[in-house]
Amino acid sequence: MARLADQKKDFPQWYLDVIAAADLAENAEVRGCIIFKPYGYALWEAIQQELNRRIKALGVQNVYFPMFIPESMIAKEKDHVEGFAPECAVVTHGGGKELAEKLYIRPTSETVFYSAFAKWIQSYRDLPMKLNQWANVVRWEMRTRPFLRTLEFLWQEGHTAHATREDAEKMVNDALKMYIDFDHDFLALPVMQGKKPRHETFAGAEYTLSTEALARDGKAIQAGTSHYIGNTFATAYGVKFLDADGTQKPAFTTSWGLSTRIIGTMIVVHGDEKGLRVPPNVAPIQVVIVPIYKTDEERDAVMKAVHSLHTMLTDGNIRSHLDDRDEKSPGFKFNEWEVKGVPVRIEIGPKDLAKDQLTIARRDTGAKEAMTLKDCTAASVHTLLAEIQQNLLDQAKKHLEENTHWVETFDKLKEIINSDNGGMVWAPWDGTLETANKIKDEVKATIRLLGDTTEAKGKMDVCSGKPATEMALYAKAY
Amino acid sequence: MARLADQKKDFPQWYLDVIAAADLAENAEVRGCIIFKPYGYALWEAIQQELNRRIKALGVQNVYFPMFIPESMIAKEKDHVEGFAPECAVVTHGGGKELAEKLYIRPTSETVFYSAFAKWIQSYRDLPMKLNQWANVVRWEMRTRPFLRTLEFLWQEGHTAHATREDAEKMVNDALKMYIDFDHDFLALPVMQGKKPRHETFAGAEYTLSTEALARDGKAIQAGTSHYIGNTFATAYGVKFLDADGTQKPAFTTSWGLSTRIIGTMIVVHGDEKGLRVPPNVAPIQVVIVPIYKTDEERDAVMKAVHSLHTMLTDGNIRSHLDDRDEKSPGFKFNEWEVKGVPVRIEIGPKDLAKDQLTIARRDTGAKEAMTLKDCTAASVHTLLAEIQQNLLDQAKKHLEENTHWVETFDKLKEIINSDNGGMVWAPWDGTLETANKIKDEVKATIRLLGDTTEAKGKMDVCSGKPATEMALYAKAY
Repeated sequence: MARLADQKKDFPQWYLDVIAAADLAENAEVRGCIIFKPYGYALWEAIQQELNRRIKALGVQNVYFPMFIPESMIAKEKDHVEGFAPECAVVTHGGGKELAEKLYIRPTSETVFYSAFAKWIQSYRDLPMKLNQWANVVRWEMRTRPFLRTLEFLWQEGHTAHATREDAEKMVNDALKMYIDFDHDFLALPVMQGKKPRHETFAGAEYTLSTEALARDGKAIQAGTSHYIGNTFATAYGVKFLDADGTQKPAFTTSWGLSTRIIGTMIVVHGDEKGLRVPPNVAPIQVVIVPIYKTDEERDAVMKAVHSLHTMLTDGNIRSHLDDRDEKSPGFKFNEWEVKGVPVRIEIGPKDLAKDQLTIARRDTGAKEAMTLKDCTAASVHTLLAEIQQNLLDQAKKHLEENTHWVETFDKLKEIINSDNGGMVWAPWDGTLETANKIKDEVKATIRLLGDTTEAKGKMDVCSGKPATEMALYAKAY
Repeated sequence: MARLADQKKDFPQWYLDVIAAADLAENAEVRGCIIFKPYGYALWEAIQQELNRRIKALGVQNVYFPMFIPESMIAKEKDHVEGFAPECAVVTHGGGKELAEKLYIRPTSETVFYSAFAKWIQSYRDLPMKLNQWANVVRWEMRTRPFLRTLEFLWQEGHTAHATREDAEKMVNDALKMYIDFDHDFLALPVMQGKKPRHETFAGAEYTLSTEALARDGKAIQAGTSHYIGNTFATAYGVKFLDADGTQKPAFTTSWGLSTRIIGTMIVVHGDEKGLRVPPNVAPIQVVIVPIYKTDEERDAVMKAVHSLHTMLTDGNIRSHLDDRDEKSPGFKFNEWEVKGVPVRIEIGPKDLAKDQLTIARRDTGAKEAMTLKDCTAASVHTLLAEIQQNLLDQAKKHLEENTHWVETFDKLKEIINSDNGGMVWAPWDGTLETANKIKDEVKATIRLLGDTTEAKGKMDVCSGKPATEMALYAKAY
């Protein structure tokens, strides 16, 4: 079993070690791409299934668009092409010949969705049109890290068109709320939410709402974004409709997405010095059962007990795994399942059996306790899993609260950002890119989100000393 | 509502018309690619969910590999690169720069899986390794048709490695059986099964097993293939293991896949002159409820009845849709849901209500009958859906049986293949590519599958007159 780097001393190395030791993914031969191994992909499948349910509950339908975007199509919206074209992969040859027109591999799909919307939408009766796709996208990033930033990644992208600004803005907020609830309920991830500053807004959008979680190393990390695009794309792509009043108007559009980056977010928020801690709701394996024996006689009795336990749990809708490998020692297995972050481990040995009991080890707290076989029911294990889910959420909430600060001086901001704990810092901001860049250059912290503008009233920007227009949430970020 | 071309007179046009009228998909602006619209994608989601369950039941785990394959990696297996490289899309630029090494977009992923297998597999204890991925792939086809042949398509590709030929061949057969059962149980598609002739074998494989359905126009169409690759790729990519006997051996590998082409297969096998007929098990909408009314008073009473019916069916796990659009007439709705192939339509109007009854229309037979409200329960509708599923299967089986022939002369083969009904023809074959090509040139029929070799004994090839080595199943094909 691979040793992990010390989480407190070298978080970036710990992160890579955990991914390798838990067998989640590995680097592919193509630079910046990863191979999702079974345990890592099982996390994504669980995320997809649950998020897909929630997306459909918003009245959104799934579709699938081609991954190729003709150069002429991507070029129609000026800000968008400027923002994305430089980081695209480009297909120049197909079927052994050079193509007449280059094809971009989608970095995101607004341009192809809107080209279709222009054909599909004629009347206000066609609105709202709410679509989503699960797809791979490519962005030519220079510095990559498994899950957090890769050339190719998997995601869902929702694209909707509406007859009114109000309806579109409601969609933007509903999508954000969906991510917040999903992060909270399913992944035990508490997040901050708010608007992105202008210079961090999605290329072509009016504004971007975002959720930010706080990693254990005190850095912020995005966990789902929702863009209010307004009319910009609709105008560029000709998405217009005949309204009930007989006039033709451009549609109001939105887009929102969540990617495989969320797996990285889970790792850096919940992981501890022993490895992953996977919240039970998303865990591919919720309970692992490890039999302990030495003699053949012991083996027979123990295996009988663990098989019956495994069947009972599986029948009770618990994702149970019986680790019956003969060639591995219990100690090896304990370590492996700890690194993989399985929420509950059940051990049964001859001594336990003699007392009609088993041992339950919780991954979140490390606590071990005996339980009688009779008390170990699907219901009691479900209760325990719910407790663990809640505890991981509570721990992450506590971490977020303890490391969110309010400052009124630049020195204090620097002190906190540069401390070992890092964290998020609310400070008054004068609203200029100049100041944001200066702070970024000096302390490597960027504005993650904007807060309430009224709170900024009468305050001075901590860096420029000029009157603040809004509160900004600063943090170092992934 | 768009009119469909006559299925009997112009099947290819009917096929395109159905896809448009049922709103399954449309051509994208990129040549040869399609946009899967909500109803078309819902079919794929249902297929994915059910097939994924069956794949996992074979002990296979899902993973995800990058879509980019470096040129040097794809070039390692000679037959494979010759077979696939000419039809690949090639990325030459990324991040605004020309790449040092070209990247091929996967046409299939043996090469990347095997490069990883070479690292992951050391000992016989690591075997079997059974992986699968759901992915998009690209093949630069010149003549494309929605679902049946597109540049980009969606599929699952299973890749497995084994310690022995026996184990690998069992996997090849298990995968084929999985497709046959899936086609049969879920899609109501009866298929022929067998080995592909050498010249139709997957590039780099020892042999390919395939399933072939028979379209209503008498052409054969593939519905899932499974390849026994043997040692060829393992040798080229260094996939070897230390066996229990202490010697190092190359692994035996397999691959098998099913793609979005299967949606096209469903259309051409089940569709009739009125449009799609979707088998209930895969149907996104199993029952559509159409309220009929004229006055407001009628509307209130009817809407109350249909809402309660819709709730009852939904609670009973039936995928029910209530078509409550006010602006469309019942006639328009009937037509629309018929084209979309929804298995059951329930109509309720004031006259029905007065008699405490409703009208049930079956899409498979076109039969309409009255049923009392009391008798219309989730259980009775489930029974009806099962009957429809069985009837579609029976009809397709009958069509396949009636249009499968055995011939011993070339004239008879030509006569059948060139007849209006087309169909599949078993004929003795001398095993040479020369003969296969001659028949292909003369009657446009190709060998879809090979039959029992013993049956061919003592028979003469229908075309060359030389002794036959096996029975070949000829058909025109998609």
